[in-house]
Amino acid sequence: MPQPESSEAAAAVKAGENNDVVTGLEPEVAGGRYPAKRAQGQTVEVTAGVIVDGHEKLAVELCWQHERQRKDRTAWMPLNVYDGGGHNDEYVASFTAEKLGTYEFGVRAWIDRWATWQDQFRRRVEGGVPEAELRSERPEGAALLRHAAEAAEEQGKKRDPRRLRACAEALTGGDDEAAFQAGIAELCRDYLRPDRKGGRTPGERPGRVTESERREVFVDPPVAGFGAWYEVFPRSTAGEGSDGTPQHATLDDAAGRLERIAEMGFDVVYLPPVHPIGETNRKGKDNAPTAGEGDPGSPWAIGGTDENGEPGGHKAVHPALGGDDAFDRFVREAEKQDLTVALDMAFQTSPDHPYIEEHPDWYYRRPDGSIRYAENPPKTYEDVHPLKFEGDEASDLWNELKSVFEHWIDRGVTTFRVDNPHTKPFAFWEWCLAELRDDCPELVVLSEAFTRPKIMHYLAQIGFNNSYTYFAWRNSKQELTEYARECFQTNLAEYVRPNFWPNTPDILTDELAEHGRPAHVARFVLAATLSPTYGVYGPPFEHVFNEQHPDREEYARNEKYEVRAWDWHDEDSLQPLFKKVNHIRRENEALQHLRGLRFHETHDDHLIAYTRQARDDEHEIGNLILVVVNLDYEHAHAGGVELPLAELGLPTGAPFAAHDLLTEERYQWQGAWNYIRLDPGQTHVMRLAVSR
Amino acid sequence: MPQPESSEAAAAVKAGENNDVVTGLEPEVAGGRYPAKRAQGQTVEVTAGVIVDGHEKLAVELCWQHERQRKDRTAWMPLNVYDGGGHNDEYVASFTAEKLGTYEFGVRAWIDRWATWQDQFRRRVEGGVPEAELRSERPEGAALLRHAAEAAEEQGKKRDPRRLRACAEALTGGDDEAAFQAGIAELCRDYLRPDRKGGRTPGERPGRVTESERREVFVDPPVAGFGAWYEVFPRSTAGEGSDGTPQHATLDDAAGRLERIAEMGFDVVYLPPVHPIGETNRKGKDNAPTAGEGDPGSPWAIGGTDENGEPGGHKAVHPALGGDDAFDRFVREAEKQDLTVALDMAFQTSPDHPYIEEHPDWYYRRPDGSIRYAENPPKTYEDVHPLKFEGDEASDLWNELKSVFEHWIDRGVTTFRVDNPHTKPFAFWEWCLAELRDDCPELVVLSEAFTRPKIMHYLAQIGFNNSYTYFAWRNSKQELTEYARECFQTNLAEYVRPNFWPNTPDILTDELAEHGRPAHVARFVLAATLSPTYGVYGPPFEHVFNEQHPDREEYARNEKYEVRAWDWHDEDSLQPLFKKVNHIRRENEALQHLRGLRFHETHDDHLIAYTRQARDDEHEIGNLILVVVNLDYEHAHAGGVELPLAELGLPTGAPFAAHDLLTEERYQWQGAWNYIRLDPGQTHVMRLAVSR
Repeated sequence: MPQPESSEAAAAVKAGENNDVVTGLEPEVAGGRYPAKRAQGQTVEVTAGVIVDGHEKLAVELCWQHERQRKDRTAWMPLNVYDGGGHNDEYVASFTAEKLGTYEFGVRAWIDRWATWQDQFRRRVEGGVPEAELRSERPEGAALLRHAAEAAEEQGKKRDPRRLRACAEALTGGDDEAAFQAGIAELCRDYLRPDRKGGRTPGERPGRVTESERREVFVDPPVAGFGAWYEVFPRSTAGEGSDGTPQHATLDDAAGRLERIAEMGFDVVYLPPVHPIGETNRKGKDNAPTAGEGDPGSPWAIGGTDENGEPGGHKAVHPALGGDDAFDRFVREAEKQDLTVALDMAFQTSPDHPYIEEHPDWYYRRPDGSIRYAENPPKTYEDVHPLKFEGDEASDLWNELKSVFEHWIDRGVTTFRVDNPHTKPFAFWEWCLAELRDDCPELVVLSEAFTRPKIMHYLAQIGFNNSYTYFAWRNSKQELTEYARECFQTNLAEYVRPNFWPNTPDILTDELAEHGRPAHVARFVLAATLSPTYGVYGPPFEHVFNEQHPDREEYARNEKYEVRAWDWHDEDSLQPLFKKVNHIRRENEALQHLRGLRFHETHDDHLIAYTRQARDDEHEIGNLILVVVNLDYEHAHAGGVELPLAELGLPTGAPFAAHDLLTEERYQWQGAWNYIRLDPGQTHVMRLAVSR
Repeated sequence: MPQPESSEAAAAVKAGENNDVVTGLEPEVAGGRYPAKRAQGQTVEVTAGVIVDGHEKLAVELCWQHERQRKDRTAWMPLNVYDGGGHNDEYVASFTAEKLGTYEFGVRAWIDRWATWQDQFRRRVEGGVPEAELRSERPEGAALLRHAAEAAEEQGKKRDPRRLRACAEALTGGDDEAAFQAGIAELCRDYLRPDRKGGRTPGERPGRVTESERREVFVDPPVAGFGAWYEVFPRSTAGEGSDGTPQHATLDDAAGRLERIAEMGFDVVYLPPVHPIGETNRKGKDNAPTAGEGDPGSPWAIGGTDENGEPGGHKAVHPALGGDDAFDRFVREAEKQDLTVALDMAFQTSPDHPYIEEHPDWYYRRPDGSIRYAENPPKTYEDVHPLKFEGDEASDLWNELKSVFEHWIDRGVTTFRVDNPHTKPFAFWEWCLAELRDDCPELVVLSEAFTRPKIMHYLAQIGFNNSYTYFAWRNSKQELTEYARECFQTNLAEYVRPNFWPNTPDILTDELAEHGRPAHVARFVLAATLSPTYGVYGPPFEHVFNEQHPDREEYARNEKYEVRAWDWHDEDSLQPLFKKVNHIRRENEALQHLRGLRFHETHDDHLIAYTRQARDDEHEIGNLILVVVNLDYEHAHAGGVELPLAELGLPTGAPFAAHDLLTEERYQWQGAWNYIRLDPGQTHVMRLAVSR
């Protein structure tokens, strides 16, 4: 044979010594280019597909390492064997995401020589082969045991070598039970590892350790994985004045509402921008092109006069809100109430923003030299100029915007809602969020990108922890089911954290506008039980204020353009519902994870039914919550709901307990189909459990 | 601001100049690590997800290049706009896989400045903005046009600059229609490309061309994509002797059957191993542990005496089959009949193989020094030794086995069925198949890996063109539907070519054994119309010989261990069905592709119904074949079959033609539900078309 070919074959032979191949490693995002996400304290379940070109048994090890840890940690990955005894070469183990930041993980796999021999030997013994055949097989097993004993000795061990040699002798003496002694397999797996001292056996398949590619998991604060958000305009927290008109409140007034928000069980209080508001081209009530006398303007038109009478921008607090000191008091009060404060980051400026004078090159110009307004032709937004993220001056702008985050982080805020991130460069976010996290791994950013799916998903890949979604417009049973499946049952759940909002200051859907209270109740329960992270634009929602703008799916008398007064003591408000549901969320782990959602058949198509389940062992029931919502907000509906008992771990031949956590009613159910009747706006949130 | 930060931001700004990001590129196999597959002449439809951080319009270009071409070719990728006008940032174009071998493809994307301006201008014009606003926008468009004109001049063009300048003047003069002239957008897209001379505009977003990662497509011969295989034992082609016992045939006898096999419309004739068969430990009839007088042995126990009386192995032809010359005559006759010959590659040896003497190190030894037999404890196969693909001598073995392929390639055979590839090193196949294809891109290898899914799929990734499947054991409607969905409606269809076999010499399922002719007809039609590549182990199948081994799902009087005589003139054989169905396959493109399969609802659950469709335009019907099979082989069944008319391109309010290609019956159907009645073993294979 010609020499060059021969040597090529030799290289291929060497490559083939691994014998095993890792064909898949999950979680995986975008082919491994971006990390999967987990909130601190959550579990990372890793599944690896590992195949071998023969009948050998494999040892597969999970390894993981936090970016600030020097050594990796490991765990055995058992083969995932199905109930019937079959398998699909999948090995599973998990680790806990203990620290904020990035973990790397991967698997190592090698042929487990003892397990391979043992398996074949067991089949010979059980198959009743002639004693002569067993006699010729035992020496192979004994040789492996002795080799393991030698490796153990090389590592300075005393007891293990004795045990292994004793086992070898027993086997050689014809004691076949010795081959199946507890603990021997684990010792052999460890001492015969090809990458350990003395581990490589002189046997016929040399064997090596296969190392998989590494994948990453990004670990963010618990509130990024499980959180209820409450949005409130601080200027609307004072109520009416003696003349019956709403008073412009300060952050101190707003701080006075925090106890109530905390009582309702929310985790995050989110404030629209708190900065000075521009006066030039200020919008009037209901987005009127010009402001009337005393109109406060949109908080998103940032830039005006600060509390010292100087031009103020993204680092200033509106004087009418009480300025810097009131802000600090607000943050301290929130801390006392165990509430996370979220601020709005809207990177655009009013024509009165100090950047206009200081950095004229940070803006786009029209051919006539004037600064471009924000626009979505044919509409123009004349109270706002977009910033120019490109060009020679861009790096100064990028650093300045990063310093805006840093300013508020220094003031005690690490959670932000980012306005329209998809209209700023992806590269800016990727850079800025990574830089911020170097010093502040607690950072949580919610992306307000109501745009097309691929863009939403990419923003999640490059660093946004949470994302607004299309939930507000998914109303029918089919729409809700399909959308929730996409969010919670596909690979998206590995990196996109949907934050379900039934409303926002920009969104009052026809559904809420037309069907009032029943729709508000149902949509709230859906948001809070479908998704572990959700939010409401609070005051109008809890008071079921559902007056719609005549032309658009948004609020009339929109708080974006005027101060409102809300009745904070309204006895008919949805406050008790908020409190109850948030309490249920905190008490039930099933509602705290992205995975574990199943939809169920119902006899009546107006009833939507689903369970969320959290369990450690698939044969146990764990924490199991059934939600049933009547999607017809005008009529009652009734019929059966089908539960796949065996899948859920519920008893198939015995009754089980259904405890309605909203009403405290308790039922005994039995069998797969159980009867439900719901009035408009009535919902069930039930904990299912094996009866005591 | 501190300098180091600033410079980091500058680097990020530069990275952000691309503005657009490619988030997905399909077809993609294993994150791009392995090529997708196409048969020569097939289309590669490429879908790219490309997003931009703003409202800009993108130009996206597909580029592709065969490994032996020096330059790439390109095509525009239009945005895939849905019927309602929405889109999900997906751009689609395709190219034809003209040559055997590997193509690379990728996309380039950049901001299309003119299209962006034009879109915003159109929205202003249509939105009826004031003339003053239009007046300030026109100069921007005109500037882009003039810049394009300059770039065209730099490239030495004459006519295009004139056209662009004229358009700029018209626009400046207030002729807004000029902005929408046909052809202008294409000129601007081309001349304003940022990577072409003069193409980069001095505008405010610098812009660059984004290049995606590259993906590969492996192009193999047409028969790898579409082929009907017929397996026949050449030694069983002679019929009975005068004493009524089956005569051992030669390859000349077998060559005499080729015309008939070709007439039945098969594309590939596949022969079990044709080599000398070992005598030591030869198996007797029905796999008896010892051979009786005159038992011919299993063709897979390779190695014995060749036609010259010398030890012969994988490169020799069994003397009883007529030796080398008869083989060459067989190949020539097959060529004449337009049949592809497929040989069996079984890399193992009988105890009489010449390797045993020449290369004792190519075998595994037991502790007592004897050579190991093939085994699957507690079973041992004493007529066969496995080869040892590892160790010091392995590279010689690997080269030798490669040379076995080369030997038969030199003799005119490029198609092979590989026996149990999953028990040989993956690295061997990856190396060997790549080496062989360097000289022989026509190579087609069918993997006989009846093992777990991940291993089957990995073998397809590393170079096998076709794969045996679990089809034989998928009998119920649900099993067939789920399995076909996995094969033809998931990403597997990009690289695993399923070859559906209802039977093999090792497999006579209970279904075929119990239900005789109706089951044979139905299973044949299912295999041949579900999958573009399929095969039958011919003689027993066409004669509906369904005597099962008493203990196993395999044939009694198995041809693996004895010579059989078949009646080649049996008037009741399934030959007419084979001929008809293979003819239908050749005439109907819908049956020639992996994609295009849809399952349909039926009133009666014993009826399985599906369509296969091939079309260039989703609004046209194209080639549309409906198959309905009665899966109850004992009783007739009847009921409606539902066709999603709009999806299929069938008229919703008018009749359409259903032409049964098996019976030549023609029906006029109307509406989604049409009535079908099928006796046991009866099937419909209908072409649906718009009535003339």
